[in-house]
Amino acid sequence: MKRFDWPVRVYYEDTDAGGVVYYANYLKFFERGRTEWLRHLGFGQQALMREAAIVFAVRHVDIDYLKPARFDDELRVETAIGASSKVSITFEQCLLRDDLVLSRASVKVVCLDKNTFRPAVIPAYIAEKIKDAQQ
Amino acid sequence: MKRFDWPVRVYYEDTDAGGVVYYANYLKFFERGRTEWLRHLGFGQQALMREAAIVFAVRHVDIDYLKPARFDDELRVETAIGASSKVSITFEQCLLRDDLVLSRASVKVVCLDKNTFRPAVIPAYIAEKIKDAQQ
Amino acid sequence: MKRFDWPVRVYYEDTDAGGVVYYANYLKFFERGRTEWLRHLGFGQQALMREAAIVFAVRHVDIDYLKPARFDDELRVETAIGASSKVSITFEQCLLRDDLVLSRASVKVVCLDKNTFRPAVIPAYIAEKIKDAQQ
Amino acid sequence: MKRFDWPVRVYYEDTDAGGVVYYANYLKFFERGRTEWLRHLGFGQQALMREAAIVFAVRHVDIDYLKPARFDDELRVETAIGASSKVSITFEQCLLRDDLVLSRASVKVVCLDKNTFRPAVIPAYIAEKIKDAQQ
Repeated sequence: MKRFDWPVRVYYEDTDAGGVVYYANYLKFFERGRTEWLRHLGFGQQALMREAAIVFAVRHVDIDYLKPARFDDELRVETAIGASSKVSITFEQCLLRDDLVLSRASVKVVCLDKNTFRPAVIPAYIAEKIKDAQQ
Repeated sequence: MKRFDWPVRVYYEDTDAGGVVYYANYLKFFERGRTEWLRHLGFGQQALMREAAIVFAVRHVDIDYLKPARFDDELRVETAIGASSKVSITFEQCLLRDDLVLSRASVKVVCLDKNTFRPAVIPAYIAEKIKDAQQ
Repeated sequence: MKRFDWPVRVYYEDTDAGGVVYYANYLKFFERGRTEWLRHLGFGQQALMREAAIVFAVRHVDIDYLKPARFDDELRVETAIGASSKVSITFEQCLLRDDLVLSRASVKVVCLDKNTFRPAVIPAYIAEKIKDAQQ
Repeated sequence: MKRFDWPVRVYYEDTDAGGVVYYANYLKFFERGRTEWLRHLGFGQQALMREAAIVFAVRHVDIDYLKPARFDDELRVETAIGASSKVSITFEQCLLRDDLVLSRASVKVVCLDKNTFRPAVIPAYIAEKIKDAQQ
C-alpha cells in the first residue's frame, strides 16, 4: 500500500489552555494530509468542483488520541487508502512526532454531486489512481 | 448612541498554550456581536444575501488587546455604530469581563454586491435602522 | 438516562467554503455540550484543575456526519453518559436542528493527574453524580 | 530593511461560507510569519520561555483586507520590523498572492515576564538581532 507523508508544524493557533493541541485541530492536520495527497495525484479540489462537478465530504471519523502534540512540534501526517467503493474512500491516517504515533484516524469521505449534494460515482480517472494507490 | 450587548463564554477551543484566548479568536467574538446586533435589528445575513443580494465584508480592523481573557470566563461584547457612509459601516466594539475592558476594536465593514463583490449602496431600509441606532 | 441540552448558533467562523459547518468544528460544539453539562452538575473545569488536580482529556472520538449544518442555523447539542469506568467517561452526543439529527458522536474522556498527565481515578463526588446521571 | 518570506497554503479550515478566507484567520497566517522569522533568527519561542522566562504577547493589530484570499491559494507572508522599543516590537506584514497584496497588517507585540505577565525588557541578544534586521 502506498503512503503519502506531509509535514505539519504546530503553532499557537493549534493549541489550547491545556498546553497541547486542541482535539478538534487534529482533524485539520489530517485534512491537510488528504488534500495534499489528492494534489500529489494530480487532483486539485477546485478543479474537481469545476470540471467534474463533485465534492468530497467527510461522512465518518474514528480517531484515537494516544499522546499529546505540543506547541512548536514538527509533526508528520501519514495518509494511506484503506477500503473504497464506487462512491466512497476511507483514508487511514496517522500523526507522528519522529517515530511516535500521537494519533490515528480512519476517515471515510463520500463523493457528492456538487449541486444536489447526493452521492455520486467517483469519476473513472480518479478511481483508477485510487486503485493504484491501494496496491 | 445605542449599544447592543451579547454574552460570550470562553471554551477550550478559544484558548492557546499561553493559557489565554488566542489573539485571532477575539475577532470571532466581535463578529458574533455584530451578527446578533443585525439579527436584533431584523436582518438575518442569509436573508440579506437572498433578498438584497448583498454581503457585508470586513475591510479594516483596529484592535487593542488590553487584558487577557481566560478559559471559562463569562464575557460581554458591546457593539455600537460609529461612522457610516453610503457603502460602509464602522462598528465600535468592546470585550468586557464585568466592568473591565479586555479588548477594544474598531471594525469597518463594506456592503458588497454578492455576485460582483463590488461595493454596493446599503439598502435604504437598513440605512434607516443604522441612522436610528447611531442616535 | 438523563440528557442535557445546550443551544448552539452557527456563525461564519464555523463554516467553510463548501457553505456548511467545517467537519472539525462539530467537535467544538460537542465540547461545549460536555463542558456545560459538567458546569450544570456543579463542576467547573478550572475548579477541578485547582482543587482536585485533575483534567479530562479526550482519548477517542467516533463521529457520524449525517446532514450538513449551515450558516445561521440554530442547533441543539444533546449530551448523555454512556459507559464509565474508574478513570473514564464515554459521552453519547447528538447535534440536532429541530428534530433532525445532523451528527452523532461517541466521545471517551479520561481523567488525568494534571501534573503527571497519567490516568487518575475520578474523585468519588464526581463519580457519584455520573452514576446518578446514567440512570 | 530586511524582510522574511513564509509560504502559506489555504485549506478548507481557513475559509468560510462566503467562499473566502475568514477574516480572523489572516491573523493566524501573520503569526506563522512572525514565529518562523523568530525561529530563523535562532529564537524558538519554547526556548525563550524556558531560558529567558519571557513571552511575546500581541498588544495591537491594525489590519487592512484589500482582496480576498481563496481556497487552495498559494500565498506568501512578508514580515519586516518597523518600530521597536526596549519592551516592544512592531512587525509590518503583508499577505500576497504572486505580486498582489491581499492584506496588510501592523502588529505590535510586547515582551512580558512569563510569570508576572508584566512588561519586561527584551534581552540584549535578541534586541541586537532586531536592530540588525531593521537596517
